[in-house]
Amino acid sequence: MSVQNEMTADFLRSAYGGESMAHMRYIAWGSQAEKEGFPNTGKLFKAISYAEQVHANNHFRELGQSQGGHTVTAGAVFGVGSLVENLQGAIDGELHEVEQMYPVYLNAAQFQEEKGAQRSFHFALEAEKIHAKLFKDAQDAAKAGQDIQLKSVHICPVCGHTILDEAPDRCPVCGAKKELYVAF
Amino acid sequence: MSVQNEMTADFLRSAYGGESMAHMRYIAWGSQAEKEGFPNTGKLFKAISYAEQVHANNHFRELGQSQGGHTVTAGAVFGVGSLVENLQGAIDGELHEVEQMYPVYLNAAQFQEEKGAQRSFHFALEAEKIHAKLFKDAQDAAKAGQDIQLKSVHICPVCGHTILDEAPDRCPVCGAKKELYVAF
Ligand SMILES: [Fe+2]
Ligand SMILES: [Fe+2]
Ligand SMILES: [Fe+2]
Ligand SMILES: [Fe+2]
Ligand SMILES: [Fe+2]
Ligand SMILES: [Fe+2]
Repeated sequence: MSVQNEMTADFLRSAYGGESMAHMRYIAWGSQAEKEGFPNTGKLFKAISYAEQVHANNHFRELGQSQGGHTVTAGAVFGVGSLVENLQGAIDGELHEVEQMYPVYLNAAQFQEEKGAQRSFHFALEAEKIHAKLFKDAQDAAKAGQDIQLKSVHICPVCGHTILDEAPDRCPVCGAKKELYVAF
Repeated sequence: MSVQNEMTADFLRSAYGGESMAHMRYIAWGSQAEKEGFPNTGKLFKAISYAEQVHANNHFRELGQSQGGHTVTAGAVFGVGSLVENLQGAIDGELHEVEQMYPVYLNAAQFQEEKGAQRSFHFALEAEKIHAKLFKDAQDAAKAGQDIQLKSVHICPVCGHTILDEAPDRCPVCGAKKELYVAF
């Protein structure tokens, strides 16, 4: 069962555009962090890039079988600067999604009784809260000239839930099993 | 040296949005092709998804150090349908870039004397011509119930040039060496 209402479909397409561009800039910023000698921050960017891929893919599939071209309008952050600047761009993008975009899209999907879109927006919203926090931690470390301390980053391939060092037995957001988590 | 003019910068951002979304839908359509028992078509989608990443990354870097949020408007194709339908979506998207989008963006970058953007648009335009052809070949095969015949797909990581089975000694578009090509 995929989306029925055109407004929710528009929001899914916009969110897909935003997630696709976030996925892409985190690859660029991750490579930049590695080059600058911050491998853990690089790993964080690459792992979260994958979480954004999960979100984009969820929105895309929720749009269903209606094949066709659309003009998509979506927010994105640009610039390849210093690590602290790139992390600020990441924080700004995540906070926009947490405070503005996903609450409004989720509310609209509830209003239009679009169950699948609610699920897809809810999954993303919960992960973005964690992303904003992790990028802030990485930025605090970078401002002190340090790389963020982490052993590994684990991403739930169903909802994008993101956690450092070890995956939980069950994803706290979607209930997926520990074995499904993708490790970076 | 990055982009100076706001119109060319807008076109770079739009192209970045379009490439990021193409990258993402080819991952989805590639997984779908594999599931349906067309591993070579799946490989083609995954390889070309990487070529679109190269284009997105080139456009992103050309936008330079000007950090900040923007609203991006870009075209994208949606839908998870049959393999033949997904390939039609891919062909439509590539042909739009080849016949409309990149010629106009390249012309504007020439008019505004934006050397870096010309390079980035030129690289993408040349690759998209090949992508349209390869997806058409895969669709012709799929219509006959066959998987496209290929051993491997090779992508130039500088310009996204795409070629089946073996990389050339030098990339015909950007001159990169054979050893740099990424194999799928
Ligand atoms: Fe996301
Ligand atoms: Fe995020
Ligand atoms: Fe999950
Ligand atoms: Fe492309
Ligand atoms: Fe392409
Ligand atoms: Fe090349």
